[in-house]
Amino acid sequence: MTGAAEGYETAPWHLTWRNLAVDQLQRTESTFALGNGHIGIRGTFEEGEPRGLPGTYLNGFYEEHDLPYAEAGYGYPEAGQTVVNVTDGKVIRLLVEDEPFDTRYGTATAHDRTLDFRAGTLTRNTEWVSPTGRHVRVRTQRLVSFTQRAVVAIRYEVEPLDADTQLVLQSDLLANEPIESDTSDPRVAAALQNPLASEFSFAEDFRAVLVHRTKRSGLRVAAAMDHLIESPDGLRTTISAEDDLARLTIAVDVPRGKVLRLTKFLAYGWSAQRSIPALRAQVDAALAGAVQTGWDGLLAEQRAFLDDFWDTADIQLDGDPELQQAVRFALFHILQAGARGESRAIPGKGLTGPGYDGHAFWDTETFVLQVLTYTMPEAARDALRWRHSTLDKARERAAQLGLRGAAFPWRSINGAECSAYWPAGTAAFHVSADISDAVVRYLAATGDEEFERGCGTEILAETARLWMSLGHFDSHGRFRIDGVTGPDEYSAVADNNVYTNLMAARNLREAAASCERCPEVAEALGVTARELGDWREAAARMLVPYDAERGVHPQSEGFTEHKDWDFGNTPLEDYPLLLHYPYFDLYRKQVVKQADLVLALHLCGDSFTPEEKARNFAYYEARTVRDSSLSAATQAVIAAEVGHLDLAYDYLGEAALTDLHDVHNNVQNGLHMASLAGAWLGIVAGFGGMRDHNGEYGFAPRLPSALDRIEFRMCVRGSRFAVEIHADRATYRLLSGKPVEITHHGQACTVAEEPVTLPIPPIDPGPAPQQPPGRAPSRRHPESLRPEEPVPAS
Amino acid sequence: MTGAAEGYETAPWHLTWRNLAVDQLQRTESTFALGNGHIGIRGTFEEGEPRGLPGTYLNGFYEEHDLPYAEAGYGYPEAGQTVVNVTDGKVIRLLVEDEPFDTRYGTATAHDRTLDFRAGTLTRNTEWVSPTGRHVRVRTQRLVSFTQRAVVAIRYEVEPLDADTQLVLQSDLLANEPIESDTSDPRVAAALQNPLASEFSFAEDFRAVLVHRTKRSGLRVAAAMDHLIESPDGLRTTISAEDDLARLTIAVDVPRGKVLRLTKFLAYGWSAQRSIPALRAQVDAALAGAVQTGWDGLLAEQRAFLDDFWDTADIQLDGDPELQQAVRFALFHILQAGARGESRAIPGKGLTGPGYDGHAFWDTETFVLQVLTYTMPEAARDALRWRHSTLDKARERAAQLGLRGAAFPWRSINGAECSAYWPAGTAAFHVSADISDAVVRYLAATGDEEFERGCGTEILAETARLWMSLGHFDSHGRFRIDGVTGPDEYSAVADNNVYTNLMAARNLREAAASCERCPEVAEALGVTARELGDWREAAARMLVPYDAERGVHPQSEGFTEHKDWDFGNTPLEDYPLLLHYPYFDLYRKQVVKQADLVLALHLCGDSFTPEEKARNFAYYEARTVRDSSLSAATQAVIAAEVGHLDLAYDYLGEAALTDLHDVHNNVQNGLHMASLAGAWLGIVAGFGGMRDHNGEYGFAPRLPSALDRIEFRMCVRGSRFAVEIHADRATYRLLSGKPVEITHHGQACTVAEEPVTLPIPPIDPGPAPQQPPGRAPSRRHPESLRPEEPVPAS
Repeated sequence: MTGAAEGYETAPWHLTWRNLAVDQLQRTESTFALGNGHIGIRGTFEEGEPRGLPGTYLNGFYEEHDLPYAEAGYGYPEAGQTVVNVTDGKVIRLLVEDEPFDTRYGTATAHDRTLDFRAGTLTRNTEWVSPTGRHVRVRTQRLVSFTQRAVVAIRYEVEPLDADTQLVLQSDLLANEPIESDTSDPRVAAALQNPLASEFSFAEDFRAVLVHRTKRSGLRVAAAMDHLIESPDGLRTTISAEDDLARLTIAVDVPRGKVLRLTKFLAYGWSAQRSIPALRAQVDAALAGAVQTGWDGLLAEQRAFLDDFWDTADIQLDGDPELQQAVRFALFHILQAGARGESRAIPGKGLTGPGYDGHAFWDTETFVLQVLTYTMPEAARDALRWRHSTLDKARERAAQLGLRGAAFPWRSINGAECSAYWPAGTAAFHVSADISDAVVRYLAATGDEEFERGCGTEILAETARLWMSLGHFDSHGRFRIDGVTGPDEYSAVADNNVYTNLMAARNLREAAASCERCPEVAEALGVTARELGDWREAAARMLVPYDAERGVHPQSEGFTEHKDWDFGNTPLEDYPLLLHYPYFDLYRKQVVKQADLVLALHLCGDSFTPEEKARNFAYYEARTVRDSSLSAATQAVIAAEVGHLDLAYDYLGEAALTDLHDVHNNVQNGLHMASLAGAWLGIVAGFGGMRDHNGEYGFAPRLPSALDRIEFRMCVRGSRFAVEIHADRATYRLLSGKPVEITHHGQACTVAEEPVTLPIPPIDPGPAPQQPPGRAPSRRHPESLRPEEPVPAS
Repeated sequence: MTGAAEGYETAPWHLTWRNLAVDQLQRTESTFALGNGHIGIRGTFEEGEPRGLPGTYLNGFYEEHDLPYAEAGYGYPEAGQTVVNVTDGKVIRLLVEDEPFDTRYGTATAHDRTLDFRAGTLTRNTEWVSPTGRHVRVRTQRLVSFTQRAVVAIRYEVEPLDADTQLVLQSDLLANEPIESDTSDPRVAAALQNPLASEFSFAEDFRAVLVHRTKRSGLRVAAAMDHLIESPDGLRTTISAEDDLARLTIAVDVPRGKVLRLTKFLAYGWSAQRSIPALRAQVDAALAGAVQTGWDGLLAEQRAFLDDFWDTADIQLDGDPELQQAVRFALFHILQAGARGESRAIPGKGLTGPGYDGHAFWDTETFVLQVLTYTMPEAARDALRWRHSTLDKARERAAQLGLRGAAFPWRSINGAECSAYWPAGTAAFHVSADISDAVVRYLAATGDEEFERGCGTEILAETARLWMSLGHFDSHGRFRIDGVTGPDEYSAVADNNVYTNLMAARNLREAAASCERCPEVAEALGVTARELGDWREAAARMLVPYDAERGVHPQSEGFTEHKDWDFGNTPLEDYPLLLHYPYFDLYRKQVVKQADLVLALHLCGDSFTPEEKARNFAYYEARTVRDSSLSAATQAVIAAEVGHLDLAYDYLGEAALTDLHDVHNNVQNGLHMASLAGAWLGIVAGFGGMRDHNGEYGFAPRLPSALDRIEFRMCVRGSRFAVEIHADRATYRLLSGKPVEITHHGQACTVAEEPVTLPIPPIDPGPAPQQPPGRAPSRRHPESLRPEEPVPAS
């Protein structure tokens, strides 16, 4: 190793980690993961070792396991699901004169890895002197194709630097790769121990295929590889296939200064229903297509795809290069998570690691789909189609819970509830409103009538029915929703959660409107005119508790009467609190894990006055510990709205850098998609002040003092436009499509080809809010004025 | 079998089951269980088979097992405890001319079992013709000694009726007896599979001893047997001991009409600390004592002990022989559960079966100890001493939960919390107030200053500290206790449960008073004058929510705003609801499993006006489904107080007959001690109207129309007195000790040797309350007027 510092280098369009750091491998494998929403491959070295936690994931492919309960209860889910590390096709082992290329031995004189946000590739360069003194340069580049969703390609180049050298390459398909599970549940670990049963293997020439099936969930996966070899003469190859291993071996003497170049094409497919021959044919066909396109062709397609994305979605920040990089990193990974999901979920970690067992949560709809709706709406649509495809399971779950309509799961891969602790899972019914909200947002942003007829109305109507059976009119005619859990996981099973009730009211109103727009769908669902009336009445009479004495909204009824958490006697090492205090204690006190009422201030901002927002924000700032990655972005958005711009900037920094700084010390298990989405939200909804209530687009731009300029782009109903923010003015510019009607700080305005520049009115936010001691965000802007010295959140 | 109907026969002083009913064995083994609070032996036949669920239990002897969680949380108990079926000493197998005596084969021409409440014995008579035609009479009688707590004795007699017959008896000590566990938790089942590891075995002459140890909890148990044989000449005996089996074999030819009589003495001991020799010596000594006392001596001691008990505790009911029997059955089993516990818990099932894993719950203090306090106060004291002995564990638990003082467990054998679902367990903090209440009641009823100094003050003070840290003063100066679970298990984690808050207030007041009475104890506990002031202030300012609109107390804050349960659409086969509806649904609606607010009306009756009681009772009657055995007695008590005497009578019948009628279909796992106690409560606190608030004893007797007379007895501060109730009058009569000051329907009165007869004032209860459809108690009194035809509760 050279003496250069390890860690990420700042650059606008790529992420580079220089030097090897074996103890950091597991987390850099997450940040350097490639994916397209269908396939995900962690950034493990081709040579297999050293490694952190290797992982190759196919969206929707999981194994089942029992969920154990010391005290079981009616309706508890019996089976869990966990994402499976499928056949690893990226393995290319190198032997240099019989010595395995392994950077833990010998000397790596240079080593860097680069994720390129415009090329869509991960590149690695290593110069290595083997323990016996052989000097080689290895350069690898790989991509998971955005354009050919079943395809992965790797280019592997080796050059002897000091002498003619015998090189051997072993290019593998490796199933049931041994990995250490870091789950504490022995049943999950057992399910992941050799999860794949071999069904078929075949190898010929440079090609091989392995077909496996999971033992309990019964899903079938096929992986195939083909190779192109460019090498000096004298090449010798063999290929073989066993149950869990197919291997192409290449042996050749390479003269000094010459390059052995291997291009490996991989194709993956899985199915719950298709036969072995059908699945094999599918991956063979994908492979044939990839080989026909060729390496350069795949690279070119990849760049074209990304050019188009960045044209729609790019964000420019002047004045903070690290944040600029983080924001593009975030957008790139969101694209990777959602681009080609095609009616599968977008998991909480995308396909970057095994965290959360690979489950999708409400954060996909509430955070990630906001970004995709305005940057890649077809990906948002596909994710919502997945939800629609799980409606039968959601209806079954509702029936099991004694409810009508559809109850979407707290966590799942296939749509069935996998949450084993109902107060924090099943009771969080807001997930169904969050999904409906994403449907409403998508419909408003695209006018996609086909989606509304095919999926949207049904989701809205079935979730509206859920709310009607979940709530009831009390003796004063108010519609109450009792005993549910809101977004904040440090409270549970409370009455009339403000966020839930406001989101449910929107769900009910929008369901009625959608049923009226699509009467044939409504009729097919048996929705009656009386039902529409009931929905609207429940929405109109929805109980929203308010604490007049304190002038704030209680998160749920009674919340503001609860005991304050004793922050003064909570040492910093006790965070996250859930690892050091029982739920019982957290639930009954005024301590907030993540934005809940504050999330309502954002998503249901039209239900609060500016004064209420300011008071509520200050009240909950003092009680929010941000033990969740689902909080900083929302706090950034509302801090910006109420005028605490430097605080908003700090929260934006935390959200955007959650993974690059490993704020929660768990990036090794995958990236936090919602935090990455939070980078976009902090800018667009925060400093851009973008709100999309009722399909109207309002902006209230403001610049934090640390930045000189922000420019972001969005797409609404096919029109792309840019918003450029300076300290005193904002400029709106149409990039393509028809003019768009918006408001700027409440003033109506048309975004057309001719840029419109409007002044930004001043705001006096009043005194800075206080966070719990030690829980203020890391100060990003050195001049931000805060009453006490902040301490990093983790 | 003869044609006589099977089932229990009604008799005032014993319980007889005539005829064999193999499919009923498991439940009759519970009702025919013998015990003394230290040893419990289910009513399994000596011959071992046919059998239901054999069980021999030693109070406090348990094995540990892991508690599994699909989603674990901070502070969840990691180890469960489950009662162990220890070495079975009651086995005496009989072979009649080589044919095992087994009533499933051949013909039992007569068969009856009788539990005698005055003799304290279980007797069995069988006449049997073997498959090969041999006719014998077998008579067995056994007892678990109240006077020699380590001792069990069995007399076994066989008489050939038709011919001289060769008989072989095998008298065993049998460890690790195979039993079917009906737990659904495989870890519990595994813990119970061969739980005992052999440490020592020895046999000589007619004596043998086995010593074993549990594998994980490390408890050691010794069982020893000795025998007396009375037989015709020609007897041949052998004895042997293996790891898990010691056996005395007796072979003899018995002439027709002669009797082979075996008397078997058993002794048990266990310890967590004592060595093998020490424990062996202990059981050998107990055995020597028993042999020295002899069978007749043990019988005589047993009867004398029981005579004394009945003198203090008997209840006479004229007009309902079945209920008369049930009440004595109940008192007998409560005595068996508590008599010789001696600083061990009284489990929810006593020592009659493996139900609830052998754990003790709050019902011991709240129900069982009410009875024992007034009938056998030294047993109440011993049970409370057990709680005191677990204070360190309760303090540790409180600290783990972030609380001060002591938090007693929801369920436990050794004092450590074993509840694996915290919303229904740990959060039910009222258990600590219930224990304190039992302390207060015991102190008032006995004036036992030594217990107060040694145990009482410390329990009261440490639980008072718990409440102070659990609650807080809100902005209006009210003391709130948020996020706890009251007695009703169909609600959980709610704010300001009325029962909990009122009981906590009493706990705080009484702790302050006790600390003032015992200043040296208070000082040793570091209780300051300021602390006493805080306790009293919290008690005085305790928040007791009231719903002025409905004129009732909500069970917890917000309860009366919740949706009503849809009883009209709940089919009767859906009860108990917890097996057919998720907790989520039950918790958020107005449906009550068991008396909660109504229990407050009883135990904290001095906090409610008569009108409030009547309104509250009617309100909760309509919402209480009684899916718990902990409800009918309390409903009887309050129904009687508000004047619905026939309804009270029906509830009394349900409570008293819970086990004999197997109302909840689970008697096979053991008797319901709290329901048995409920028989006493329904009479003494119900029709007697006995209340003991503030150490004052008030009575408000009333007779239900079905009965001609009730007489019950109590002991207060060493004075025994009787209360005799007729329809129009009640008579109070001192039996021994000093005169006692009481009130009769509010009128002061002295109970002295000269009986006092006072008239019973009339009461107009108004309209009968309604229960949920199908959930009214079984109608016991044919003339009781209820608006709809009741359906049996199970």
